[in-house]
Amino acid sequence: MNKTRLEKELKMAIDSKTKPLGALGQLETLAFKLGMVLGSTRPVLRNPVMLVFGADHGIAQRGVSAYPAEVTGQMLRNFATGGAAINVFCRQNGLRLICADAGVLERLPDSYYGFETGKIRDLRAGNGTRDFTEEPAMSEETYGFCAEQGRLLVKEVHEAGSNCVGFGEMGIGNTSSASAVMSALCDIAVDECVGRGTGLDDAGLARKIDLLKSAMKKHSDVAMNRNPGQVLQTFGGFELVMIASGMMEAAKRGMLILVDGFIAGAACLVADKMHPGLREFCVFTHLSAEKAHGIMLKYLDATPLLQLDLRLGEGTGCALAYPLIESAARFLREMASFEEAGVSNKET
Amino acid sequence: MNKTRLEKELKMAIDSKTKPLGALGQLETLAFKLGMVLGSTRPVLRNPVMLVFGADHGIAQRGVSAYPAEVTGQMLRNFATGGAAINVFCRQNGLRLICADAGVLERLPDSYYGFETGKIRDLRAGNGTRDFTEEPAMSEETYGFCAEQGRLLVKEVHEAGSNCVGFGEMGIGNTSSASAVMSALCDIAVDECVGRGTGLDDAGLARKIDLLKSAMKKHSDVAMNRNPGQVLQTFGGFELVMIASGMMEAAKRGMLILVDGFIAGAACLVADKMHPGLREFCVFTHLSAEKAHGIMLKYLDATPLLQLDLRLGEGTGCALAYPLIESAARFLREMASFEEAGVSNKET
Repeated sequence: MNKTRLEKELKMAIDSKTKPLGALGQLETLAFKLGMVLGSTRPVLRNPVMLVFGADHGIAQRGVSAYPAEVTGQMLRNFATGGAAINVFCRQNGLRLICADAGVLERLPDSYYGFETGKIRDLRAGNGTRDFTEEPAMSEETYGFCAEQGRLLVKEVHEAGSNCVGFGEMGIGNTSSASAVMSALCDIAVDECVGRGTGLDDAGLARKIDLLKSAMKKHSDVAMNRNPGQVLQTFGGFELVMIASGMMEAAKRGMLILVDGFIAGAACLVADKMHPGLREFCVFTHLSAEKAHGIMLKYLDATPLLQLDLRLGEGTGCALAYPLIESAARFLREMASFEEAGVSNKET
Repeated sequence: MNKTRLEKELKMAIDSKTKPLGALGQLETLAFKLGMVLGSTRPVLRNPVMLVFGADHGIAQRGVSAYPAEVTGQMLRNFATGGAAINVFCRQNGLRLICADAGVLERLPDSYYGFETGKIRDLRAGNGTRDFTEEPAMSEETYGFCAEQGRLLVKEVHEAGSNCVGFGEMGIGNTSSASAVMSALCDIAVDECVGRGTGLDDAGLARKIDLLKSAMKKHSDVAMNRNPGQVLQTFGGFELVMIASGMMEAAKRGMLILVDGFIAGAACLVADKMHPGLREFCVFTHLSAEKAHGIMLKYLDATPLLQLDLRLGEGTGCALAYPLIESAARFLREMASFEEAGVSNKET
């Protein structure tokens, strides 16, 4: 079916359901998007997968987070043993969870890595990025490696039968990366792009802003240039590159993309610049409590599904919003039309 | 465990989970509420039930809705055959759906009624209420009948093993009832309590406001008195009485109460006046697109879970929000603590 015809049929299908016109609000917009992305007036989400990439950040050594950097690796272990929030919500809502070590400071013991359920994928690009307040977060070569890893993982899950993929992350210090990426790509002053992350106090927040300001100054040529790949290579991190590249692969394959919060959102900014129109494949699953996320979503012209003041990352917003996305697909498939149900439509 | 100790243990349990303090936002507040209502630091929602009451309204004859009154009965049939939005979302999210005819204009054919799944409970209090712009919506006797039916249905589902019950409704004209009830009980001018319902145009909205103003004037003694039972008997409808009484029974039994949108919210206002503290048992599942709902939630000091511009009723907000409520219970039960997972806590 061509696009114009599908649009028309989707609108008709949504409006014919036994409910007042527009009464399912944002779920109707979402149903329309699902239909367009999956190319059907009766869209089915198949084998949804949640990808979570963990990586460390050189800038974390500068005190930009309320938590020490070793928490990234510890949380990867927590993912492997099933005790983190993302494990709980994926189990509940039927998403397959794949966690990857994109490059945490210290490699975990070998027994943690593997391809089976509950194992961590070893996609390590290094022992964390370099401190981007001093030098680019990674080399061009490392950037290329990360992009390839993100692409391959999405290729794998798509070939295994999934048409819906969510992206999440874990990385102490990575709100700083995301803020710098957002500032450079959107041409928004960096202090507008900064928030408290996992819970910085006022002094910590002031330090983070100062550091980021000086980093933006140091790399002002990159920021001026606004080349998305160069921005990402400069401000990192490994997980952001894998997510951005994974999203592009997903869009190329016509998959529905679930975007978590502020950090996955920054990766989406990059991916949308590199692959214009990519945002049409995306569901922005929630509005984070991280201050700058609202500005980012506005820039992307996106309406988030949930507004629960989450600021955890890990892809938890995707996993929590997933049942609503499924609801949008199901009402399209399962609700009766006025005609089928013999219900009188609006008096016009 | 006494209440103070449970409060303390719940706060500790929530804060010990492997996530930054407060990072699950509203889900943490919700988890605390579930724990307090269900009396456990590891709350389990058992056999959740969605009750949907359908009834007709005398005032519907005055053109206060975009749809004709016969739609109420037609939608009850649609519930019975499984084609309405609430059927789809209850099936998806594992809620048992019980629909009741609280008194639609015309009795459905006998075959629709019964106790089995997919049948409509016959709780008919009459052929719709009287037009409350002319006289009280129902007699004291009918009011008592409705209250008893709501009470008995909740008693039944609780005795069958449920500890979580949602309340929804269907009734052309019932936003007018809800607006009048809200205005009288909260002492808010009735035009502040009125919205477009299922989609009134400007002329229809103006007519609805005029009608409600004259009704409030006619029953000014009732509005002045602010006796919740009398307010409900005067402005109706049958479904509102059953919901309010059902909520009181649920609170008495220590069940978690899921409140849908504007109309179930108006019933909750009444129930909370009659049974002070009832709102502590309630989860307000969404913010309706119906304009006055935000004012109502503010009056109840309630934060809604979803903000999706829904305005469908039927309990759809409850059914859509249910997975989030389950997520709150599950993270309390299933997430590892910092200690269990060997994750470093915040540097303090």
